[in-house]
Parts: sequence; structure tokens; C-alpha cells
Amino acid sequence: MFKEMFRRHAAGVAIITVNYNGHPFGFTATSVASLSAEPPRFTFNMARSSSSWPAVANSAYIGVHMLGLENRELADRFARTRNRFEGDHWAEGPHGVPILKDVAGWLVGKVQMRLSFENNAVVVVEVVDGEVGGNGSPLLYHSGAYSQPVPLDYEI
Amino acid sequence: MFKEMFRRHAAGVAIITVNYNGHPFGFTATSVASLSAEPPRFTFNMARSSSSWPAVANSAYIGVHMLGLENRELADRFARTRNRFEGDHWAEGPHGVPILKDVAGWLVGKVQMRLSFENNAVVVVEVVDGEVGGNGSPLLYHSGAYSQPVPLDYEI
Repeated sequence: MFKEMFRRHAAGVAIITVNYNGHPFGFTATSVASLSAEPPRFTFNMARSSSSWPAVANSAYIGVHMLGLENRELADRFARTRNRFEGDHWAEGPHGVPILKDVAGWLVGKVQMRLSFENNAVVVVEVVDGEVGGNGSPLLYHSGAYSQPVPLDYEI
Repeated sequence: MFKEMFRRHAAGVAIITVNYNGHPFGFTATSVASLSAEPPRFTFNMARSSSSWPAVANSAYIGVHMLGLENRELADRFARTRNRFEGDHWAEGPHGVPILKDVAGWLVGKVQMRLSFENNAVVVVEVVDGEVGGNGSPLLYHSGAYSQPVPLDYEI
């Protein structure tokens, strides 16, 4: 029942990245949420079984990338594959954090707190840098598939 | 820049409710995210300046309602008005938590932790009950307006 409820809850798609001992790590997340605008802080949740957890647990800075419709392949790549950083689709950004190119925007922030609940964790980040990208439509995840938002008065 | 980034980040719309000393409280939230499926836990973020914060801060149980397209007026009511519980659109549910009728689904859970960051807080909830509602399309909030998700291959 819980899973069905969150299948019904549409979410924006983001990619979290982190530099750990000189190596880039990253994963697709649908739990990114604003915490406060002043100071600029956001949260995300993740499994501590994730291959990126040791990097998130031990690095001071983290990046988040908001994805647009044109970033669907990037979302898949960071959700399902292992060769996430092979290629020139990224570069080192502020504080060494891997920054993905051609996304809707990115933020880099300092981790304020990691709160573990058994096998999962809530991470709180305070933003220190960022850049807004192209003004496209955001990529959504809903009911096990990607989708796009359209206005309510648009008949489908 | 931070605000623009989160304007670009589409989110599902939910309503949080709580019973505090016999009085119903509630507000519209776009920060609800799954934390883990086993045990079923979710998180949400809120301002401590919210009129609902004293209720959230001092109650053991909390409800979350996933909204569908047909719940747009409910979303507005719990975001902008004061008479949120005048009417028969709700009833007391498990542990006294106010349950809104005709939503996409609701969950009631026990608060595991409230973590304050200056004027805002992260709340972690472990689900103890719930009910899935009608199978409609979820209500989204994006770029300052409500919207609906449609598949990527749908030409708009």
C-alpha cells in the first residue's frame, strides 16, 4: 500500500553527484525537496545500500542537478548503469563536485547533516553555488515511468 | 537562483493533517518524499512559522494525503485560506488524525523525528495505516502553477 501511494505521487527527477577521494559518484533521485530559501537549503533521501553512500557519507560537498525532458538518458544512466561518468558529459565544478552538462540547472552545497534511519538516510545540504540552465520542461517520474507536466486546462 | 531552481523542479502536491488537542490542523506541502518502504517511512519539510507547526511539533501522529487533479480546490484551500476544516470534506481517522475525503490516497504515521534548521524543519514519519483512493492522475505543482503529468511520447 505504501509503495502504491508513492507510485501515485509524481516527483521531479534530479541527479546527486559527489567527489570522493578524487573519484566521481552519482545517482538519480526523486526525493529532492526545498527546505528553506534563506539560507538556501534542500534535502534528499537515499538508501545506505547505494554504491554512492560511502561517498555521500564522507564528503563535505554535494551537487544536485535538476533534469529537463532532454535529460532522460542521463536519468537512466545514473539510475541503472555502472559507467556513469565515462564520457565528456561532466566536468569538475566548485569544491571538486562533478557537474553534469546541459541540465536544467545545478546547485553545489555543503552537507549540514546526515540522519540515518536504519538502511536509509536523510541528507540536509546548504547551497553555496549553482547555475540555472536552459528553460525547458522538467522531467517527472510517476507510476514507474518518466513523464512531463502540462497545464491543467490542457485537454489530454 | 535557488528559488528559480526549485520553480523548475516539479513536485507532487500533498496535504499534511494533524489533530492537536482536539482541533484539526493541515497545510498543503510539495516536499513529501519516500524514505524507505520497509519500514514504510516518509519525510516532509515545513516552515516553523506555519500556523500548523505547533500542532506538528506536539502531536504523535500525522496524516498525509496524496492529491489528484480533482483535488485542486482542496490544495488551494489548505494553502491559502483559514477555514480549512469547515465542512464535511473530512472525518476523524486513525489516532484522531483528520482524514480528507476523495483524495488519491492517505497515510497516517507516527512522527519519528523533527529536526529543526533555524526557521524550518524536516519531519520523519513511520506509516501505521492508510488507504489507496481512486486511480486518477496526480496533481503537480511546477513553476508557480498546478499541472498534470503526461507521458513523454505525448506530443503537446
